[in-house]
Amino acid sequence: MSRLLVAYFSRTGRTQEMAEEIGRGARETGVAVDVLPLQKVAVDALSGYQGIVIGSPSYYGTMVAEAKHLLDSSIKLHGKLVGKVGGAFATAASVGGGSETAVLSILQALMVHGMIITGMATDDHYGPTGIHAPDAERLIRTCRAYGKAVAELTKKLHG
Amino acid sequence: MSRLLVAYFSRTGRTQEMAEEIGRGARETGVAVDVLPLQKVAVDALSGYQGIVIGSPSYYGTMVAEAKHLLDSSIKLHGKLVGKVGGAFATAASVGGGSETAVLSILQALMVHGMIITGMATDDHYGPTGIHAPDAERLIRTCRAYGKAVAELTKKLHG
Amino acid sequence: MSRLLVAYFSRTGRTQEMAEEIGRGARETGVAVDVLPLQKVAVDALSGYQGIVIGSPSYYGTMVAEAKHLLDSSIKLHGKLVGKVGGAFATAASVGGGSETAVLSILQALMVHGMIITGMATDDHYGPTGIHAPDAERLIRTCRAYGKAVAELTKKLHG
Amino acid sequence: MSRLLVAYFSRTGRTQEMAEEIGRGARETGVAVDVLPLQKVAVDALSGYQGIVIGSPSYYGTMVAEAKHLLDSSIKLHGKLVGKVGGAFATAASVGGGSETAVLSILQALMVHGMIITGMATDDHYGPTGIHAPDAERLIRTCRAYGKAVAELTKKLHG
Repeated sequence: MSRLLVAYFSRTGRTQEMAEEIGRGARETGVAVDVLPLQKVAVDALSGYQGIVIGSPSYYGTMVAEAKHLLDSSIKLHGKLVGKVGGAFATAASVGGGSETAVLSILQALMVHGMIITGMATDDHYGPTGIHAPDAERLIRTCRAYGKAVAELTKKLHG
Repeated sequence: MSRLLVAYFSRTGRTQEMAEEIGRGARETGVAVDVLPLQKVAVDALSGYQGIVIGSPSYYGTMVAEAKHLLDSSIKLHGKLVGKVGGAFATAASVGGGSETAVLSILQALMVHGMIITGMATDDHYGPTGIHAPDAERLIRTCRAYGKAVAELTKKLHG
Repeated sequence: MSRLLVAYFSRTGRTQEMAEEIGRGARETGVAVDVLPLQKVAVDALSGYQGIVIGSPSYYGTMVAEAKHLLDSSIKLHGKLVGKVGGAFATAASVGGGSETAVLSILQALMVHGMIITGMATDDHYGPTGIHAPDAERLIRTCRAYGKAVAELTKKLHG
Repeated sequence: MSRLLVAYFSRTGRTQEMAEEIGRGARETGVAVDVLPLQKVAVDALSGYQGIVIGSPSYYGTMVAEAKHLLDSSIKLHGKLVGKVGGAFATAASVGGGSETAVLSILQALMVHGMIITGMATDDHYGPTGIHAPDAERLIRTCRAYGKAVAELTKKLHG
């Protein structure tokens, strides 16, 4: 059975909440889901998952250095993540505050690994983006739909 | 005296409203400002401005084809816009709906022309982004501040 | 059986050559492949393919307006391309000439459609990029590998 | 007199070579230039420069974690770099290997700081990009032209 990792870096708790909603959506499909802070993710463990979703606040327009450090370290796995499913989500202080570019910075890393990613035809097209304004309901819906979509793709490709 | 163009493509009126607020902010600095729909901008006229700000809704993640067409046509001016000041703004249907990537698609075009652009330390860092949710007050403030910043830079560089 | 479209816009013939190599790689997998200039692609026809790869020269940092026009028109199909496989490739005048951002501009559009894309662990990670310098051998290899990877993903997901 | 910093992260020496050429081009304008490895740059020192150019290899599509760490740490200076001139350059293993997206990842960070950046009408439009193929002459020319352009802009704005 496919295993999906939702790894996040969160200082205020907001990115963690999104991670948990993405995990909830993913579990609806029956895949095994781990929702973990980045700090608890050993690089080697990444190869044990068929789907990997990474979330980060937007710091200066891209993922936080801690998340980048994990991805840079994953070079030791280069070639072993090919064909796995990837995903990304991000938070920012405002609309236009860098959440989309942070999502893309993560997706680019996953693409360099040869991973497979899915866009979303509704709402947050590249991956869920949360801003500090109170958009809770929309965001929960978006996160769950994304988690479900990524998990379904993982199941289709990896069983 | 420097002249600044704020050119926009607007179907719903929202991008036009942003253009007008950006124009308002720019005029506070004393530069001459034209706020015009893209359809009324002749490519050759671009070289008569010292600052050019372009706004578009995000269509499929980048500026609308009509805006891209204007920028593609501007190849006849290639080399003549070097050192002018550029800027961008965009609208989208939601946070994460492609507004940041649309702004960046415009800024990239202006950079290929060798133009000079400024980021913003507050709010919408790459350029103003409006979403359909009611963020009117924030957006007006952001647009005016951006118009003013772009116009001030134009004045500093071009008098 | 899955059908894959490789649609390109080419003025100098270079983007067309890449399209043909991508088509060659894709056919190795047994899927049915059409390689067509964008001008011959009717928007409605897009829904008849399970995989869609779009190629464009980088004009001012993103895909050419003609390609953007096709993608903007595809809004009439919005929701019908969800889950299909997408891909992109681009040419530019030099390294750093906007080929990567052109590839990403296309991938972003495909993601807004809810399509599934794959990165490449070797060489051109986001999609094949050709520059005018004589890198023919590398480019042919990259294009064929990409065509094959996109076609294999299409087969896995759509049979 | 304006001071310009060219800070780089280099493992193979290639990004360092580019930094030195950018420094050479910048010095032609008469500004004072420091070319330093990132590891020797204290965050607080950034506010002493009127122009800041940052170079990094592309690791997984964006700047290396060490460079991101410096930029994340620069939050303590947020608001103090507004109006300074910024620039970026990057290396990658191949065309399409992530050099453009690495340059943009740095430029986005500088824009979040409210800094001013310039595109280039020739060659590498967003900032110099080096690949491992032997493009030495082109790259030296591009780096020097970029260094000169960034330094001239810094002089114009800051004397």
